[in-house]
Amino acid sequence: MSLDSQGNSVGTISAEKILIDKPLTLACGAVLPSHELMVEAYGTLNADKSNAILICHALSGSHHAAGYHKDDDKPGWWDNYIGPGKPMDTERFFIVSLNNIGSCFGSTGPTSINPETGKVWGADFPALRARDWVESQKLLMEHLDIDCWAAVIGGSLGGMQAMRWALEYPDKLANSIVIASSMKLSAQNIAFNEIARRAIKSDPDFHEGHYLQNNTLPKHGLALARMIGHVTYLSDELMGQKFGRELRSGTFSQGEAAPIEFQIESYLNYQGDKFSSDFDANSYILITKMLDYFDLSREYQNNPVDAFKNATCNFLVVSFSSDWRFSPQRSREITDALIGAGKNVSYAEIESDLGHDAFLLPNARYEKALGNYLSGIADQLEGNCP
Amino acid sequence: MSLDSQGNSVGTISAEKILIDKPLTLACGAVLPSHELMVEAYGTLNADKSNAILICHALSGSHHAAGYHKDDDKPGWWDNYIGPGKPMDTERFFIVSLNNIGSCFGSTGPTSINPETGKVWGADFPALRARDWVESQKLLMEHLDIDCWAAVIGGSLGGMQAMRWALEYPDKLANSIVIASSMKLSAQNIAFNEIARRAIKSDPDFHEGHYLQNNTLPKHGLALARMIGHVTYLSDELMGQKFGRELRSGTFSQGEAAPIEFQIESYLNYQGDKFSSDFDANSYILITKMLDYFDLSREYQNNPVDAFKNATCNFLVVSFSSDWRFSPQRSREITDALIGAGKNVSYAEIESDLGHDAFLLPNARYEKALGNYLSGIADQLEGNCP
Repeated sequence: MSLDSQGNSVGTISAEKILIDKPLTLACGAVLPSHELMVEAYGTLNADKSNAILICHALSGSHHAAGYHKDDDKPGWWDNYIGPGKPMDTERFFIVSLNNIGSCFGSTGPTSINPETGKVWGADFPALRARDWVESQKLLMEHLDIDCWAAVIGGSLGGMQAMRWALEYPDKLANSIVIASSMKLSAQNIAFNEIARRAIKSDPDFHEGHYLQNNTLPKHGLALARMIGHVTYLSDELMGQKFGRELRSGTFSQGEAAPIEFQIESYLNYQGDKFSSDFDANSYILITKMLDYFDLSREYQNNPVDAFKNATCNFLVVSFSSDWRFSPQRSREITDALIGAGKNVSYAEIESDLGHDAFLLPNARYEKALGNYLSGIADQLEGNCP
Repeated sequence: MSLDSQGNSVGTISAEKILIDKPLTLACGAVLPSHELMVEAYGTLNADKSNAILICHALSGSHHAAGYHKDDDKPGWWDNYIGPGKPMDTERFFIVSLNNIGSCFGSTGPTSINPETGKVWGADFPALRARDWVESQKLLMEHLDIDCWAAVIGGSLGGMQAMRWALEYPDKLANSIVIASSMKLSAQNIAFNEIARRAIKSDPDFHEGHYLQNNTLPKHGLALARMIGHVTYLSDELMGQKFGRELRSGTFSQGEAAPIEFQIESYLNYQGDKFSSDFDANSYILITKMLDYFDLSREYQNNPVDAFKNATCNFLVVSFSSDWRFSPQRSREITDALIGAGKNVSYAEIESDLGHDAFLLPNARYEKALGNYLSGIADQLEGNCP
C-alpha cells in the first residue's frame, strides 16, 4: 500500500470562504439571496481548465478532504485517496472540495445568521435536497470559471450528487464517479435515520431546534444519533474482528456484581460523545432528510433507465461487499440502469470487511480501480467534455 | 394455514401469581429470599406428569403466551403456535409459561418492592443472567411437582434459556428447542443494545433508574430503545414490502415546503410510543444486559462442543433466512457444536422474509417442522426423560 498520508500528502492547506452572491432557489421554494461556501483546492488548474475534479461530501463530511490544516493531527477525510501519486492525483488534477450548504463547517447553514431576522437560522433553515447542493456547486463552478468538471466524485450521499450532476448538467461533467451509493434509500435506511432524528429531538436541550438561542446543545441526542449511524456504517464482521466480546471492565465470575462493560460499548460511547461536540444537530436532521428524500427517478416515472437517458458523461460505479447500508445490490441497480440507458459504465465490486466506511479507508483493489479510471481521464483531458 | 387463533384458541385464560418461597442465589451473588412469578398454563398435565412443556420468553415477552385474557383484543404472543391442534398442541401437552424475574408483567422485578428497604427496587434490582431465569424456572418446576420437562422451548433469549437448561439440568428435560437464537451475541448486537440503553439513560426522566420514586417515566428514551430494537428485528425486505418509500404526508413537488413523513417513520414512532407505555425501562436495561452477557461456552474454555458434552436431551434448532440479528449462521454454529458433542439434533433453516420476528409469525414450513418434532415427542412420552 502506498497510502501513507504522511508520505505523500498535499501538505498544509487552508480553506477559503467564498461568497456566492447570486440567489439560489431551493427545491422547497425558498430562496437564499446569497450564500457562503468553505472551499479547499488541491493541485493546479491547467491552462484549458480541463483537469478540475469536484469532490462531493456525505452526511458528516466537510471541505477538508485532504492534507493538514495548521495544527491538525489528522488529515482530511479522503486523504487516503487524494494527493500526489494517489488515485485523485494532485500532480495531474485540480481538486475542488467544498462544505455544502446546510452543513456546519463554515458554509451557510443552520448555525449561520438568517439575514431576514438577524438571528441564527437553527431549525428554520429551509429543507434541502441533494439537487440543492448540486445547484450551489454549479454556482461555485461559475465563480471558479470552470466550464466542465473532468469528474464529479463522491461516496454515499456524495454519489447521489455525482448522479444528480449527470442528470441536471449533462454537458458540465465528463465523468461521474458514484461510490457506495444508491438511487434511493430503503425503508430500513429511512428508519435508522428517523430514529437518529428522534433521538436528537427528544433531547430536552434541543428546544425545537433553537438550542443556540437557549445557549445549550442537544449533545446527548446527537451522540445517540451518531452511535446509531456508526453501527450501521460498520460491518458485523469488522466489529467482531475489532472488538469481539472483549471486556473493558468487570468480570463474569460467579458471585461478582461489579458492572461489566464491553469494549464495543466504550468505543461507541466515545464516538458518539466526540461527534456531538463536532457537529450541529440541526445539520444532522437536515442532511439525513436529504438522504431520505433522494430518489433519482422520481420525476422519471420511477424508471431509472429514463432518468439516465439524458446523461452524456461516463460512469464509474463502486461498491463494497460488506456494506449493508448501501449494499452492492444498490450499485448493481445503478449499473443496470446505466447499461439500459446505453451509457458507458464501469463497475467495481470491492471485497472488504469494512462496511460502508470502506469508501474512506485503504483498500488495494479500490485504490487500483479508482486510480486506473482517473489516470485514464488524466491521459485524455483534452476534448473530454461534451 | 390453520393458524387462525380465533378458530382454535386455548380460549380465555387467567394468570396465577405463584410465590416461590425459597432463596434464589443469583449469578451476581445477590440472594432473593423469595420471589413471585406470574404463570399461565394451557392443556392438562397427564397422570405421570410427562407431558409438560416449559415456554421461555424473550426480551419483551410475558407469561401470556396463548389465548385471551378477559377483555383482550389480541391473544398471547405465541398464540400462532400454542393451542388445540397447533404445534404446541394443548390437547396433548401441558404448557407452562411464566413471566421471568426482572421483567415487568407481575413477577418480581425492578417495579417490585425491595423487602429490605420497603421501596421500589428500580435500578437497584440485581443484575441477571440467563442462568438466573433457569434457576427460577427450576424452582417453579419443583413448586409444580414436575420432575422432567418433555421440552423446554424458546426463541431468541428464550432459546438461550433452553440451551442453558440442557447444560445445567441435563436430567430434567427430554428436549431442548432452540429457535432464532445464538450461543453468544456479536459485537454488533451488543452495540445496538448499548445504544438502546443509552437512549433510556439519557432521558432526563430516567433519574438514574429511580423514576418511579420521582413519579415520572423515561418514555422518550424507552420509545427510542424500542425503535432501535424493532428495526433490527425486521428484515430490510419486509420493511421494503410493507412500507417501501410510501408517504404518510407531504409531497416531493418542487416548490413545496410542507413537511414530508414516510409511512415507515410514522409506524416506527407509533411502535416506540406504544411500547414505552407497556414496558419498564429498568427491565429493558436489565434484560438487554442478560442478552449481552450470555455466552454458552464461557465456562468451557470457549469450546461449545465441551459445553454441550453433558447434555442428554435431544435438540431441535430452527433459524430464519432473513433474520440478521440472530442469523442462520449462529444456529448452524449451535448445530455443529451439538453434532461435535455427539448429540441428537435436528436443524431446520426456514425461508422467511420476516426477520427475527419470524419465530412469532405464521409460516407453513416452520409450523410443520415444529409440529412434527413435537408430535414425535407426544407419541413417545413414556420413558422420554433421562
